[in-house]
Amino acid sequence: MNLVLFSEADFIGDRLIAIRDSRRLQHISQVHQVKVGETLKVGLLNGNMGSGLVVLYNETEIQLEVTLTQAPPKPLPVTLILALPRPKMLKRTLQTIATLGVKKIYLINSYRVEKSYWQTPLLEPGAIYEHLLLGLEQGCDTLLPEVHLIKRFKPFVEDDLSSIVGSTRALVAHPYTDLPCPAQIDYAITLAIGPEGGFIPYEIDLLKKSAGFTAVNLGERIMRVETVVPYLLGRLY
Amino acid sequence: MNLVLFSEADFIGDRLIAIRDSRRLQHISQVHQVKVGETLKVGLLNGNMGSGLVVLYNETEIQLEVTLTQAPPKPLPVTLILALPRPKMLKRTLQTIATLGVKKIYLINSYRVEKSYWQTPLLEPGAIYEHLLLGLEQGCDTLLPEVHLIKRFKPFVEDDLSSIVGSTRALVAHPYTDLPCPAQIDYAITLAIGPEGGFIPYEIDLLKKSAGFTAVNLGERIMRVETVVPYLLGRLY
Repeated sequence: MNLVLFSEADFIGDRLIAIRDSRRLQHISQVHQVKVGETLKVGLLNGNMGSGLVVLYNETEIQLEVTLTQAPPKPLPVTLILALPRPKMLKRTLQTIATLGVKKIYLINSYRVEKSYWQTPLLEPGAIYEHLLLGLEQGCDTLLPEVHLIKRFKPFVEDDLSSIVGSTRALVAHPYTDLPCPAQIDYAITLAIGPEGGFIPYEIDLLKKSAGFTAVNLGERIMRVETVVPYLLGRLY
Repeated sequence: MNLVLFSEADFIGDRLIAIRDSRRLQHISQVHQVKVGETLKVGLLNGNMGSGLVVLYNETEIQLEVTLTQAPPKPLPVTLILALPRPKMLKRTLQTIATLGVKKIYLINSYRVEKSYWQTPLLEPGAIYEHLLLGLEQGCDTLLPEVHLIKRFKPFVEDDLSSIVGSTRALVAHPYTDLPCPAQIDYAITLAIGPEGGFIPYEIDLLKKSAGFTAVNLGERIMRVETVVPYLLGRLY
């Protein structure tokens, strides 16, 4: 937690907030080990960041007087279309995506996504929210990404994806193509990343035909989704 | 396991290998679900890759007739100097580094590395080896990285690091500098990445003064080490 994120609900005065939940309390007391009179880096969810002066500190509550003058970092101009990863990876991947500044994520079904992955409690709104918060707190950002769950591949790609892509460039990471992934670009993209084992040829074709995607490759090495997301975003921007 | 890695010790004939350990057996039977007559992608540790024809398959043994004609992917021209991460991250970071093709890693101490991290059983040679293998199997590579454990920062940086850097460009990722990290380079580097919270100013100064490092920044967002490694390598090459 490099940033103490709070929401409008935490305000107890004009510029005064109270942290009372055990997750943030514990983290602040154990990791930051603050005392009254010290300051913490704070951010209002979907708002500005700044500093929080500790004015009260006990086992059940920390009160901070906040000054919020700094805008959060600029979002990455990326819409991510991600085949739903296995639960263990999903958790870390959601955090990483939030840390890196992606604000629009579609978790989609695909032929090689195991049906059981859709049953994980991690996909409940509260759980997604929690992992996005952890990612924002890590990356020092306040803008909560939106996450959409898409359980049917074909109607999504055929009916909805074109308008999601809009005027961005649409790229799909795919090992079986010769075109290398671009680097250091200055335009917005919609980036699709397949499941372990990749999208099947039918899916790649549909992405190309129905939504104007271009397949790009990442070299010979096969990465896990939690690795390929930062690898690609580091390369692109 | 996108590649079945084996070693010289697995040979039971001229081109015949036997897989008998439970980790590889289980993975091959559960994930690949192969039958006699099918082929698997295989690689000889520190040697060539190719295909393995399943000639015998039962609960305790899989025999493969291997043809090894393909060279492993080219290593990344990177020497990584990494402040020892916390054990949970170390595991994944070792795997990621191996997947991405780094072949020389120094895990070093630094002021903000907790002493207890050096006690983890993950640093025993067998454990390091195991996680590197998992990373190679994921990335489809056979060349085992070398990992060095450096428990004292100062003598390492003052006495040894210059000759490790050699003629490469030496970069240290550091939030408090204006110089952005280069991208899409075509030369070899030695890349230092600090602990959570970063290297302290004294350490940055010593890296600059004693070993010719240049500090470069990665933007406003603070990443975990398991994220920053692929992010940087995707950006650089």
